[in-house]
Amino acid sequence: MIDFATTPSDYKHWKLEINGPIATLKMDVDEDAGLNPGYTLKLNSYDLGVDIELYDATQRLRFEHPEVRCVVITSDKDKVFCAGANISMLGLSSHAEKVNFCKFTNETRNGIEDATANSKQTYICALNGVAAGGGYELALAAEHITLIDDGSSAVSLPEVPLLAVLPGTGGLTRVVDKRQVRHDRADFFCTLTEGIKGKRAVEWNLIDETVPRSKFKDTIAATATEFADQSDRPDDAKGIALIPLNKVTSGDGIAYDHVTVSIDRTGRLARINVAAPSEAPVQELEDIHAAGVSFWPLALARELDDAILHLRTNEPELGTWVITTTGDADLASAADTALLAHQEDWLVREITLYLKRVFKRLDVSSRSIITVIEPGSCFTGTLMEFVLCADRSYMLDGTFEGDNQPEATLRPTEMNFGPLPMCNGLTRLETRFLNDKDAVGAVRGEIGNDLDAQAADGLGLVTFIPDDIDWEDEVRIAIEERASFSPDALTGMEANLRFAGPETLETKIFARLSAWQNWIFQRPNAVGDDGALKRFGTGVKPDFDNKRV
Amino acid sequence: MIDFATTPSDYKHWKLEINGPIATLKMDVDEDAGLNPGYTLKLNSYDLGVDIELYDATQRLRFEHPEVRCVVITSDKDKVFCAGANISMLGLSSHAEKVNFCKFTNETRNGIEDATANSKQTYICALNGVAAGGGYELALAAEHITLIDDGSSAVSLPEVPLLAVLPGTGGLTRVVDKRQVRHDRADFFCTLTEGIKGKRAVEWNLIDETVPRSKFKDTIAATATEFADQSDRPDDAKGIALIPLNKVTSGDGIAYDHVTVSIDRTGRLARINVAAPSEAPVQELEDIHAAGVSFWPLALARELDDAILHLRTNEPELGTWVITTTGDADLASAADTALLAHQEDWLVREITLYLKRVFKRLDVSSRSIITVIEPGSCFTGTLMEFVLCADRSYMLDGTFEGDNQPEATLRPTEMNFGPLPMCNGLTRLETRFLNDKDAVGAVRGEIGNDLDAQAADGLGLVTFIPDDIDWEDEVRIAIEERASFSPDALTGMEANLRFAGPETLETKIFARLSAWQNWIFQRPNAVGDDGALKRFGTGVKPDFDNKRV
Repeated sequence: MIDFATTPSDYKHWKLEINGPIATLKMDVDEDAGLNPGYTLKLNSYDLGVDIELYDATQRLRFEHPEVRCVVITSDKDKVFCAGANISMLGLSSHAEKVNFCKFTNETRNGIEDATANSKQTYICALNGVAAGGGYELALAAEHITLIDDGSSAVSLPEVPLLAVLPGTGGLTRVVDKRQVRHDRADFFCTLTEGIKGKRAVEWNLIDETVPRSKFKDTIAATATEFADQSDRPDDAKGIALIPLNKVTSGDGIAYDHVTVSIDRTGRLARINVAAPSEAPVQELEDIHAAGVSFWPLALARELDDAILHLRTNEPELGTWVITTTGDADLASAADTALLAHQEDWLVREITLYLKRVFKRLDVSSRSIITVIEPGSCFTGTLMEFVLCADRSYMLDGTFEGDNQPEATLRPTEMNFGPLPMCNGLTRLETRFLNDKDAVGAVRGEIGNDLDAQAADGLGLVTFIPDDIDWEDEVRIAIEERASFSPDALTGMEANLRFAGPETLETKIFARLSAWQNWIFQRPNAVGDDGALKRFGTGVKPDFDNKRV
Repeated sequence: MIDFATTPSDYKHWKLEINGPIATLKMDVDEDAGLNPGYTLKLNSYDLGVDIELYDATQRLRFEHPEVRCVVITSDKDKVFCAGANISMLGLSSHAEKVNFCKFTNETRNGIEDATANSKQTYICALNGVAAGGGYELALAAEHITLIDDGSSAVSLPEVPLLAVLPGTGGLTRVVDKRQVRHDRADFFCTLTEGIKGKRAVEWNLIDETVPRSKFKDTIAATATEFADQSDRPDDAKGIALIPLNKVTSGDGIAYDHVTVSIDRTGRLARINVAAPSEAPVQELEDIHAAGVSFWPLALARELDDAILHLRTNEPELGTWVITTTGDADLASAADTALLAHQEDWLVREITLYLKRVFKRLDVSSRSIITVIEPGSCFTGTLMEFVLCADRSYMLDGTFEGDNQPEATLRPTEMNFGPLPMCNGLTRLETRFLNDKDAVGAVRGEIGNDLDAQAADGLGLVTFIPDDIDWEDEVRIAIEERASFSPDALTGMEANLRFAGPETLETKIFARLSAWQNWIFQRPNAVGDDGALKRFGTGVKPDFDNKRV
């Protein structure tokens, strides 16, 4: 089992140093501390374990260090920044492991860009040595890239010529779309094993500057200060310690404070229940800060994040996630009110951004998501996003016989209209009602109102509203049927249906780039016994089927 | 060898009827006339042969029938419109064949949408029976879909539940992006073997209307007339007969009038040379009409189209296409002038749109494209698009020793600034200089000027400008090296680097959807011995690996 929880004192591969407004995150991978046996993490190459620590560091920098305005990513090893994902590890990994690893890596890098753009915690990259493949891809996520000018250090994406795979964790997309490198230059660069350095690297916009060793440290410090000066993060605020989650794991599931996961292995599904706050959420800013990790929206984000990562990584056979909620709509609504009232506060901003990222993680999860809305549920505001995320939702029309709970309702809040956009830049409602502003407006007109099944159906918010006679069979059959379909076909279908509308850098990375990468990760030319990934390092050249597909 | 040339009198699967402004294209697939042995094309299911005829018909309708303003696609079989791509054919096809077949199908459907949007020849679809899978996907390319209301006929995308593959020729994308069907409804629809008919199909916007048998014919006629009335196509113009190309094929290549293809099997490359007009192109509209298929721009589009389709389908091992040109820049420029002067004419509009589609076909071809620019070449205007298409271009700086030809030049014309957009909606120059209007403007300032290597390089139009000393080695090594890389990695890399900037319905279909489809076409759950494609029709259920990737 892979556990995503860690803490700086347990880091094996990174060193985090804070110096006032500037943090430095030094990569110093312990060769012998790979997550699995069978490979050595030479030259700051990485595996999922290295990435889990990086993700943890980025989260702590946001929440525990409000004073940090600029983060410098660099290496603590001489002459090498990072050699990218470890090739032997990739060669030993199953297809699913490779794909899942890359998805998580992508999410962390997108999170780094989100910190820069929205948390005003700007990441810059100090390449003190060679940055190859995934190493350069990590740099591409930074706002500014400085390369040491030492006559040998270069940036490179050698995946195509060396390994017959793609620079598939954002590299190809960020080169042409983010850094706007001309596509013919990008083509040349991506076929060049040794990479590019010096003046040409700057001219082609592969990096922002190259600086001799003698001036490297000072230049980085000056650049970091420059970015730090542009930030609005407070210098006198107290951070929120991300203490370990209260989490009880058993074979059948996980219980956190607000999120529970029950596993049905026969049905190949996980039931995820999310509870609304059990008491009135604090509304004053100082009380929110005092509550910290126990403030319900932050606790929710952390628990959901951990549950999603756990299920994605450790439970690949659970193909369907059935999402339910419980609790009081007024209390859930009050939590949204607290968030919305203090958007200018750094912590409330962080919590909102974290919720946004967690829902995005749900959107790109290769699992069928079915939301079930029954009496006693609480799909209010932020929690209503589960309904909008879902591939399909079922809402009971009316009540169950012999059950005195009132009818289930949905209640929109302002949280559904902006703060939680999808990767495509639209809200889930805008994506749902693509180009139909009236339909979005009609839902907006219902902010604060409890919508019963008929009303929710009329507004287009739920898929089906069976009554109590049909309910059990209809929901059961939908869930059972889902489990009978090909997992691959479902993954492809969901990845295409969930993201109507515009594409962005992020959706391009998760769709165009990742889909091609997944294809190549399945092709004999890469992963076959005679393929490049298997033969790398053996001295024997790969044997390609030369037919173009 | 697959030949893409055909003519209505040779059609086996379609009947084309012209009735004034309205054409009817009736699908009536000959079960026993599949392109390959081993399968029967039951229920109007199709293979590449059926699609080749459809493509031919769409081209003839544009050029030979200026009077046709609306095209009705329907079936000549009772109770069935089209059952989609033939499953047994897919089961017997290699991975490359499946992928190539789907790409061509997509291009034809995009062409149908292009005819509707830009040629004012609107396609509508009269579903007189069941439209399943690719059958419904064909309908989705039409502007208006009418389904017969006979109690049994439905539209469906049963690929996921029945075959464990995707509705991958546009279906998933067009449902949510073009017809803006809500994603949860789309999810339900795409898992429903029997499909949806009647009121629900209209409500969900899967079709535009459903009409009882008694009123079907009249309704279609009325709808067709309504669309025809909105067209600006002339009713008194004479069409241009698309007579067979003058084409000489040998083992080493193909010679057309203006395009020659030489094949180097050892080097695994095709050299494509395009010749500029050999005499001054006619400029008057009546002369252009009189010239017809021998008007150079139209001849060029037809020859290139055929060459690309031939190489893609029949020469999969030729992984690199080296493109050169020859001829006189003034004559090539004059051809552009003639096109640009008469854009309001239906024929000139068609020729321009055809050129646009051919260059788009080049963009989505899974071959490395290298443009070589030497003395004697003619990369002017339309022909300069080859430089902008290319993954990489080499331009000789200066002349060769002992060669009295003047230096090679590029000459931009207005054709490079609008009439030939890529699938992403931008011109190739806008994509090349993404968000850099100044760089595009600088090239625009050079319209009509001959740019030597230094100037072209300064403007960012070419990748490298070696002098005569380095030329031979540099170009040779680039081409040889290309042939040594994994064909799959190159395909994935090129598909990601060529399309910076916005995504559109078309790029979504070619990238997101096709990439996922290719992945699934490679997965054991679909194509393995126990997979759904192989077991379809045997009565034995597929045996899935249930792990989600």
